[in-house]
Amino acid sequence: MSASAATTGAALATLDVNCDMGESFGKWVMGADEAMMPLITTANLACGFHGGDPVTMRRTVRLAAEHGVAIGAHPGYPDLLGFGRRVIKLTPDEAATYITYQVGALKGFLDAEGLPLHHVKPHGAFFATLRDDHSLADAAAEAVAAIGDGVLVYWPAPAEDVPFCDALAARGVTIVQEIYPDLGYDPDGRLKIELTAEPTDVDFAAQQVTSFLTDGTVAATDGTPLTFAARSACVHGDGANAPEVAQAIGSAVERAGRALAPVERG
Amino acid sequence: MSASAATTGAALATLDVNCDMGESFGKWVMGADEAMMPLITTANLACGFHGGDPVTMRRTVRLAAEHGVAIGAHPGYPDLLGFGRRVIKLTPDEAATYITYQVGALKGFLDAEGLPLHHVKPHGAFFATLRDDHSLADAAAEAVAAIGDGVLVYWPAPAEDVPFCDALAARGVTIVQEIYPDLGYDPDGRLKIELTAEPTDVDFAAQQVTSFLTDGTVAATDGTPLTFAARSACVHGDGANAPEVAQAIGSAVERAGRALAPVERG
Amino acid sequence: MSASAATTGAALATLDVNCDMGESFGKWVMGADEAMMPLITTANLACGFHGGDPVTMRRTVRLAAEHGVAIGAHPGYPDLLGFGRRVIKLTPDEAATYITYQVGALKGFLDAEGLPLHHVKPHGAFFATLRDDHSLADAAAEAVAAIGDGVLVYWPAPAEDVPFCDALAARGVTIVQEIYPDLGYDPDGRLKIELTAEPTDVDFAAQQVTSFLTDGTVAATDGTPLTFAARSACVHGDGANAPEVAQAIGSAVERAGRALAPVERG
Amino acid sequence: MSASAATTGAALATLDVNCDMGESFGKWVMGADEAMMPLITTANLACGFHGGDPVTMRRTVRLAAEHGVAIGAHPGYPDLLGFGRRVIKLTPDEAATYITYQVGALKGFLDAEGLPLHHVKPHGAFFATLRDDHSLADAAAEAVAAIGDGVLVYWPAPAEDVPFCDALAARGVTIVQEIYPDLGYDPDGRLKIELTAEPTDVDFAAQQVTSFLTDGTVAATDGTPLTFAARSACVHGDGANAPEVAQAIGSAVERAGRALAPVERG
Repeated sequence: MSASAATTGAALATLDVNCDMGESFGKWVMGADEAMMPLITTANLACGFHGGDPVTMRRTVRLAAEHGVAIGAHPGYPDLLGFGRRVIKLTPDEAATYITYQVGALKGFLDAEGLPLHHVKPHGAFFATLRDDHSLADAAAEAVAAIGDGVLVYWPAPAEDVPFCDALAARGVTIVQEIYPDLGYDPDGRLKIELTAEPTDVDFAAQQVTSFLTDGTVAATDGTPLTFAARSACVHGDGANAPEVAQAIGSAVERAGRALAPVERG
Repeated sequence: MSASAATTGAALATLDVNCDMGESFGKWVMGADEAMMPLITTANLACGFHGGDPVTMRRTVRLAAEHGVAIGAHPGYPDLLGFGRRVIKLTPDEAATYITYQVGALKGFLDAEGLPLHHVKPHGAFFATLRDDHSLADAAAEAVAAIGDGVLVYWPAPAEDVPFCDALAARGVTIVQEIYPDLGYDPDGRLKIELTAEPTDVDFAAQQVTSFLTDGTVAATDGTPLTFAARSACVHGDGANAPEVAQAIGSAVERAGRALAPVERG
Repeated sequence: MSASAATTGAALATLDVNCDMGESFGKWVMGADEAMMPLITTANLACGFHGGDPVTMRRTVRLAAEHGVAIGAHPGYPDLLGFGRRVIKLTPDEAATYITYQVGALKGFLDAEGLPLHHVKPHGAFFATLRDDHSLADAAAEAVAAIGDGVLVYWPAPAEDVPFCDALAARGVTIVQEIYPDLGYDPDGRLKIELTAEPTDVDFAAQQVTSFLTDGTVAATDGTPLTFAARSACVHGDGANAPEVAQAIGSAVERAGRALAPVERG
Repeated sequence: MSASAATTGAALATLDVNCDMGESFGKWVMGADEAMMPLITTANLACGFHGGDPVTMRRTVRLAAEHGVAIGAHPGYPDLLGFGRRVIKLTPDEAATYITYQVGALKGFLDAEGLPLHHVKPHGAFFATLRDDHSLADAAAEAVAAIGDGVLVYWPAPAEDVPFCDALAARGVTIVQEIYPDLGYDPDGRLKIELTAEPTDVDFAAQQVTSFLTDGTVAATDGTPLTFAARSACVHGDGANAPEVAQAIGSAVERAGRALAPVERG
């Protein structure tokens, strides 16, 4: 998974913009789904374990379809109370079956609308565990590979030396690496996930995208340029100014002479 | 949906025997799944809302596959505490999406094993609501019809004048009617669902099957013969002597010169 | 429970203003609790079944205490997905124990802070069931009466011929009747609970309170004056302009020469 | 917390026998509560997070009361799916409020019956976390200390150098140490928690109790005598021969010239 010229931002004709969607639960609303959907190209849909519920899932699938947005599954831990952000010590069997269950449930709604499943992107603590735990990563990769149909997996760049990504690659599953223009990076390329109520710096986010599309790099917090073999930019839908950020990223893509488009399945 | 000669028991070359399966939840066990599976031909699998969980679902799917048992979804209300037996006043949207979600989740496990979804059979209070409520029945039938692939719906005979069955028939979904040899019937053909801890009367159950396969009738509690256009016999897996009952039914089928086999999908 | 002079609005020296609080769940926020708390005198706290969770409960108890707001329990149905607004067909035992459990849980937090439990106010579908079902009402009243310590029950006026209120009165529990200044009334006194996203008419709400405190009546939607033996006004905390409404009601109370104060326990 | 003569088994006039109870959930049964209750002196009741539900809690409280069994809370992680045995990475606030909530809920049922809360005993992964994590242990100890009324905490011996026990002792909460006669011990005194379906060795369990009451020791798996300052013996209620084990322990107590009795609150 080397950052070959073919896949750095500078070589991309199109950029994919993905966003977590459908994370409301019953009467509780999360995220500005209606406002964000026209501004993105792929949506990661919650599947009921950390957020989302059947009514929300169907509504969000239909909303995405209206806007031509490709739909992926965003499976999480079974922890509504913690929004799937608390690590639970699972067995490999549990991890694998939680993915199969949630992806299957989403596919139910996609099948009913005649839509394909585009990708899978693990949520929160599920993401963190698959990044670190070899046996869980292996079991989960097996579950994803069993889906077939060229399903993609989204993962924050860099995807090197990540147990889950290695296990997926070994099974022929394509990984789409993402940059996070609205978060900061350590100089060693590690994403600084800081959940704050502060509005995102719109200009900074746009600048990261511009830089990525022109010279293939994003800047770490100390200015170090980081080269990533990414094809998608992840934006957050629950920030105070989320639609503004997504809009600015779209404009940056356009100014760089590129188009917004989802990554094609393998 | 008349009880034509072609579908009364006397005309059947084979009889299907179905049983609710996979209703354990985490550490809590329900039903003698291991003992029952070799004795039945179709299994109705809980999908996590009233019982069942991802690990149990995968294990039960594999167990059914080992025994050549056809697998259907047994969707219930989202009510673990009440085991899906308490009516919840749902909207049609809720009812429809709860079916799509649960069936999809089960299909995830079936797809992973390369197995087809054979049928859908609503559980407990979901069954009761679809029997009585026209708008919910309509929405739920739409959700089932959208599954396609000749999926069947299992329903206790008689299926006449049942909103859900009518709504399914109007959408071209085939209904497989069932007799319940281990429960009693009112003289008007209504099933007497009485949940007791008493062991089932094995001889009575076998006699009902024999009667159904020889003259097409089962006996009501007052002896009235009831003619049903059924193709399956439902047995319960959580009774004290459930495997014994299933064994006796299998023997009755054999003595009547018939074979045990699942109903074929349309 | 007649509307004696002693308890119509015109005779009141103080008015209580109550509001549902603590209905957030995990990461999902509901209601403007921080803004509303300074404007009310009693808070009805969700107890984890329809909304609320342990962290939210402790935070909300402490927030209420800071503002000298009396705290009651707001028990609901075990239905996060439906926010406790869907009727579930419970047994009397279930209804009674769901109250005991939730009130006990809230008392855990109150005891830890050295605060008393002021009242109980059933939420959503639980309210609707206790209004209509005699056997559930009886079992639930028994559970409330067992709390003792002069705990009050809040109930929308008029409380006449309500099974739960009758069952409580028979056990010596005092009922505090409420007016709903931000909702409409039928000419026969029945509350029109319409959940809309529209902002509340602030002037209308203030006028209802003024009218209640001066001549003891609120106006039905056709202008009919309705005389209620109420001692509290319920405001909603999740409306677009909820704090503005609560502020206007407080001003109306002041203009009528009265003070805001919680009803005293018996 | 030294194993002073006053508290070794040889010096005890009575022995307490405790057992986890009320861990059924809705229709799913766990444990032989009816058979075990006459054989024990204190019961640790599940509070709805890892097992137990309001109906089960009330029934189990009443069953304990009928047999004069002292009742404690057995709070667990909010994880029905994992029966509270999977570690979830909680914040100290979460840990503390989960205890307050669950203990409060149980107290609701105790208050209704006029019974005191005897003790608190953390369940499964909650136990493991409080044994190891200083900040969670501190927050949880604060929550327990706030209960007051001389509430005890049950903990497996040895309780030395356990963050939770130290934090409790610093707040004046009395810890009751337990031996586990039906489990094995490492030579260093560490309990070997092995969950098996094997029946317990009844004679071994009885012998451990006899040894504890005569010379104050239990035997490690290699025969090493371990001296514990324990006052209670914990038995399991879900083993194949659980009542037989409890019966044998009771007989051993009697043969040693002692009586079965709950530890008295401080």
